[in-house]
Amino acid sequence: MKYPILLTNLIEHNIAKTVLGAVQKAIGITDTFIPLHEPEFSGHEWDYVKKCIDTGWVSTAGSFVEKFETGLAEYTGAKYAIATSNGTAALHLALILAGVKPGDEVIVPALSFVATANTVQYCGAIPHFVEISRETLGMDSDALESYLSEITEINPAGLTNKRTGRQISAIVPMHTFGHPSDIDGLLRLSQKLNLPLVEDAAESLGSTYKGQHCGTFGTVSALSFNGNKVITTGGGGAVLTNDEEIAKRAKHLSTTAKLPHKWNYVHDEVGYNYRMPNINAALGCAQLEKLSRWVKEKRKLAENYDAAFKNISGIKFVREPPKAKSNYWLNAIILNDENAEYRDTILETLNVADYMARPTWTLLHKLKPYADAPAMIDMNIAENIGKSLINLPSSPKLARRSR
Amino acid sequence: MKYPILLTNLIEHNIAKTVLGAVQKAIGITDTFIPLHEPEFSGHEWDYVKKCIDTGWVSTAGSFVEKFETGLAEYTGAKYAIATSNGTAALHLALILAGVKPGDEVIVPALSFVATANTVQYCGAIPHFVEISRETLGMDSDALESYLSEITEINPAGLTNKRTGRQISAIVPMHTFGHPSDIDGLLRLSQKLNLPLVEDAAESLGSTYKGQHCGTFGTVSALSFNGNKVITTGGGGAVLTNDEEIAKRAKHLSTTAKLPHKWNYVHDEVGYNYRMPNINAALGCAQLEKLSRWVKEKRKLAENYDAAFKNISGIKFVREPPKAKSNYWLNAIILNDENAEYRDTILETLNVADYMARPTWTLLHKLKPYADAPAMIDMNIAENIGKSLINLPSSPKLARRSR
Repeated sequence: MKYPILLTNLIEHNIAKTVLGAVQKAIGITDTFIPLHEPEFSGHEWDYVKKCIDTGWVSTAGSFVEKFETGLAEYTGAKYAIATSNGTAALHLALILAGVKPGDEVIVPALSFVATANTVQYCGAIPHFVEISRETLGMDSDALESYLSEITEINPAGLTNKRTGRQISAIVPMHTFGHPSDIDGLLRLSQKLNLPLVEDAAESLGSTYKGQHCGTFGTVSALSFNGNKVITTGGGGAVLTNDEEIAKRAKHLSTTAKLPHKWNYVHDEVGYNYRMPNINAALGCAQLEKLSRWVKEKRKLAENYDAAFKNISGIKFVREPPKAKSNYWLNAIILNDENAEYRDTILETLNVADYMARPTWTLLHKLKPYADAPAMIDMNIAENIGKSLINLPSSPKLARRSR
Repeated sequence: MKYPILLTNLIEHNIAKTVLGAVQKAIGITDTFIPLHEPEFSGHEWDYVKKCIDTGWVSTAGSFVEKFETGLAEYTGAKYAIATSNGTAALHLALILAGVKPGDEVIVPALSFVATANTVQYCGAIPHFVEISRETLGMDSDALESYLSEITEINPAGLTNKRTGRQISAIVPMHTFGHPSDIDGLLRLSQKLNLPLVEDAAESLGSTYKGQHCGTFGTVSALSFNGNKVITTGGGGAVLTNDEEIAKRAKHLSTTAKLPHKWNYVHDEVGYNYRMPNINAALGCAQLEKLSRWVKEKRKLAENYDAAFKNISGIKFVREPPKAKSNYWLNAIILNDENAEYRDTILETLNVADYMARPTWTLLHKLKPYADAPAMIDMNIAENIGKSLINLPSSPKLARRSR
């Protein structure tokens, strides 16, 4: 589409103004900067952290870590939760626990935060990037099934990539912006191919699929409590699993693989210093008490956005997929092909007006460290979303603003 | 030496009682459990952490991280300090920054906490364990020099282990219990062989060698602020370096290697989520204000131990090495050969009497994950220390107790 330059500028300006207007309609006029996702400490954060400091238990032993783990297990319905120093650490452990070995390939969506690929690399394995679905923004299970049937064969060692000769050892869907991926389809594929499903649930605390919490479907999964997440512990994450042996090993590996003994230091495998400190868990315990309320508010905020963007043509507000109830961690709009070229102008307009907005991540296979990693050839949807999606301010308190 | 069993029991009992008496003389009689090293939060910890919670800046961005880094650089005299999630993360980064590559060998002392070897393994490299010196409890530079001249040759690729064919890419001394290793000897060797020196200074914050702070001699080094260290941030560590490029890359690698951009997510190499959260740095800022005082108190405590053990034959209190001023992170005694067999009885007696005591770590080459790693054949001193050393309670406040 080629309009004369002046007309293009005019269209561009109008579209950016329209988006700004819709955002203002959804969350109100602001006179201060509105971040993408702001943490809130309005509960028992200070009480718990103070208790932690007063008792001297701030480090890797202390009652808040266990309390936080119990709280997470209760909230998500997972049998076990193991708190870690951050979501990256949790996903790294989850991959090891699922059996990912050096030299393996691991199926990862092309659209995700870089940690999804980095943790595969930490295992000495190679990420293999695949297409996403427009409906979920997560892994497309149908496209994946036909792709794997084409490029793999079953060997005694397991599922093998015919082109690279490497074993494929896990499928790692990521529930993008809190929206559950097509879990039914992925579970079916995981069972059919005997490949463990490792859910990257970093963004989806508070999201459910058919009434069950994200991160409880696969063999093992990872949550994140980074400062920009639904709840935060400063830095933090957790491994979720229903398998007792995996849970025990998650704790063992996260605490330097030290065997219990009254004084001896014996470590029986290469372990990690991935345990969440007690002071961070204290924060987490207080945050967890607010989680249900915040998820409700975030869903209300999403409704407000949905209403505000409803009648704007060429721009689609991203709604939760079928069978899913999303935490709407990050609200998002997708520009149609005609409007996609104005994305940066819209981003600029929103940010200048103090409404923080950002595009989604650079697709993983386009990053320098992963440019040579195996990837599906046809990833049109990921490519398109990469160019046309904009994330909008999503803090729960924005649902409380008068409009 | 073979006494009849009853006499042996008597000797054993007397020695254990003697050690307990000396410990009581040094730190006073207790009616509560005395940990090996207890954190203390008597300063601005509350104020700073509360400020952190009140402003909402608890995560990986926030003013306390930079303040803590500046404070660490000032205290140690290092040009740059980069705060990390823990000491293991700092050492992992330090090794990468020193140029350790997959398949390399890295020289590590046989006596250290497991993280010193684990971080080498995280790089895909292989630890090569070497003998320690009785004087420093750290790497023996003379033994190392003659060993390396025997087993290595200089190839175009650099220093190569003739037996394994692998390149040796760094020397990693660890300043045991806060006592500086033989830095002069190690620096000379490092320069002669063109091998970067990476100091594992996890235990030696507050220790100096010829008036210069540990961790500022090598190319890059790692500190730890775990709960049992001289100061604590819950979990935390730092990379120290005088090299601007290394400092920049340390920060880059610790923050997922994301390139600065107003909204784009581009990562130019495989990075890590190793940044210290702001809430932990807030704790660190308050702790740092007390560090000089605590180091003085810990040195006073060491004097008390030294005096208490002075006239006990067959047991030697570990004093700082020549040219060094130690933080005496963990006080230690070494039993002579005759007494070494009573070590566990002494440990039992001390712990039952509520004075926490422990032996040193299992030697690294004796741990299952490192049993096949290359190691010096003659490591008699490390073997001997491994069997005969006992760590004693070392919290600074013990110097304040009436005796």
